[in-house]
Amino acid sequence: MSAFMAQALAEAEAAGARGEVPVGAVVVQDGRIIARAGNRVEELGDPTAHAEMLAIRAATVLGDKRLEDCDLYVTLEPCPMCAAAISLARIRRLYFGAYDPKSGGVEHGSKVFDHATCHHRPEVYGGLEERRSAELLRVFFAERR
Amino acid sequence: MSAFMAQALAEAEAAGARGEVPVGAVVVQDGRIIARAGNRVEELGDPTAHAEMLAIRAATVLGDKRLEDCDLYVTLEPCPMCAAAISLARIRRLYFGAYDPKSGGVEHGSKVFDHATCHHRPEVYGGLEERRSAELLRVFFAERR
Repeated sequence: MSAFMAQALAEAEAAGARGEVPVGAVVVQDGRIIARAGNRVEELGDPTAHAEMLAIRAATVLGDKRLEDCDLYVTLEPCPMCAAAISLARIRRLYFGAYDPKSGGVEHGSKVFDHATCHHRPEVYGGLEERRSAELLRVFFAERR
Repeated sequence: MSAFMAQALAEAEAAGARGEVPVGAVVVQDGRIIARAGNRVEELGDPTAHAEMLAIRAATVLGDKRLEDCDLYVTLEPCPMCAAAISLARIRRLYFGAYDPKSGGVEHGSKVFDHATCHHRPEVYGGLEERRSAELLRVFFAERR
């Protein structure tokens, strides 16, 4: 397994253990992780505190507001908010785990990167460790609903 | 002029005076402003620090993570990131100033609210104080480019 996706999955598992929807993300630059986060919507009471948003903000605080030489690994297809943030941050490559037909914004719904109004489209690789990423979510919701 | 849009315009003007793209937003609950923000992308070095994101985060910190009885006034058509955040926060009504054919995500491009994957669509009122909102942006960019 990609070591970076393994770390994103570890963030997702930690989020689930905190009672958050288990999604995790890491930002990678020059072969090393410079920022990592799990979902903290419940803890922060902030509907925008998705793993990707927190990881991107943490990475931009370290240096440039543009992450042109950075890649993002996230365990779930980003929603439109996170997809647009990835574009605004000029992330180079996006690797995501499970597809999200219900709320995704990359391959589904508003398909944020697929419009002329999207001024930067990362390279996109979906379905990486798809089964494990999806299983985390399935178990989480099965235990709660 | 709507007193709330006047306050969003004041936030936009203050952002412009700080060297930021002049966009401002306020969140209104029960007839009073509970959060207000201007764009701080440059100051924070954070590409996600749009006025709407900052105002929504400030409002959710005050109470519930869902702003179901709140309205957002913003001087520019939200981008897809901010439109999706407005939906996630369950904002009741969105009032925006200038339309943004280049980067907007409500009436243009990915039209975030217009998909089945968007689970909450606010009432949307565009073009409020459109001329003044657009003029602020026009002057800002004319002075810099």
